[in-house]
Amino acid sequence: MLGYKQILYMAINYMEHKTPTAPKSIGRQLNFSAGVSTSVITRILQPHDLSLAQWAVLSCIWRNGALGIKDIAELTGNAPPAASRIVDRMVNGGLLLREEAEADRRGVVVNLTAKGEELRVLQFVFEEVNEVLLKDLSQTDQDKLFELLARVEQNGRTWLKYSDD
Amino acid sequence: MLGYKQILYMAINYMEHKTPTAPKSIGRQLNFSAGVSTSVITRILQPHDLSLAQWAVLSCIWRNGALGIKDIAELTGNAPPAASRIVDRMVNGGLLLREEAEADRRGVVVNLTAKGEELRVLQFVFEEVNEVLLKDLSQTDQDKLFELLARVEQNGRTWLKYSDD
Repeated sequence: MLGYKQILYMAINYMEHKTPTAPKSIGRQLNFSAGVSTSVITRILQPHDLSLAQWAVLSCIWRNGALGIKDIAELTGNAPPAASRIVDRMVNGGLLLREEAEADRRGVVVNLTAKGEELRVLQFVFEEVNEVLLKDLSQTDQDKLFELLARVEQNGRTWLKYSDD
Repeated sequence: MLGYKQILYMAINYMEHKTPTAPKSIGRQLNFSAGVSTSVITRILQPHDLSLAQWAVLSCIWRNGALGIKDIAELTGNAPPAASRIVDRMVNGGLLLREEAEADRRGVVVNLTAKGEELRVLQFVFEEVNEVLLKDLSQTDQDKLFELLARVEQNGRTWLKYSDD
């Protein structure tokens, strides 16, 4: 079948082939790990016809009750206009409604419709994702990972604030 | 100025106010940290009129030389069609060109134009970002963070592969 020349050629090619490499970038590794995590929760939510962005908004309200847009934006890590657009679509989709805040608070808050309330069974899917992603990490390593990621986030935020000047 | 009633009211309000909380979700923390990291590099690249997606493609080629779309996709963490679209725009923008691969490889590869080559001074901005984000982490903690993030990524990829069936 293969002559010795072809085999030799393949061997040389194999030895000479350099696998392309990527730099040791924390930003790259964060984005790769976050991307995989988003794929996992997206797949879990798929049968419920819910996106991660929608789940994140519902999650805030399942946990805290009715909230203003500012709180929703902060908790989901979106800018308020982006949070507002997601909420608008979910109001149109019948998952959320806007209502007057209780007497001691001002303005309009976002609350669950009956349909949004029904989906509350999905409140703890983040724990399923935690189990998938952290499954072979000891409790010490898990705590360390959360701690280091929070410090990285804080370092970045401080720099961004400072570099605004 | 303030009557005792107002002060009492404010104090009660203060005590009763519950700060809304978020769940301890690794996916959330990963996305928050990755988001901040993306904001940092985006700000560093802004004066050069370069997006993170464009920088990531250039970074692969600065480091490895001309590459096929499949390698670029893998190294940047994009699906090949998405990588192809980014490359198309960069070809139109004069940063990249497509050329025939060398004799020992097949098909078309993507290479730098003179303009893309000029931007090579930006090859190591990822190290600036590393310094910003990891600045108060010991070398041991930095190594640990990379290791744990790679394990989280691998756990997610394994699950995604398995859950395809």
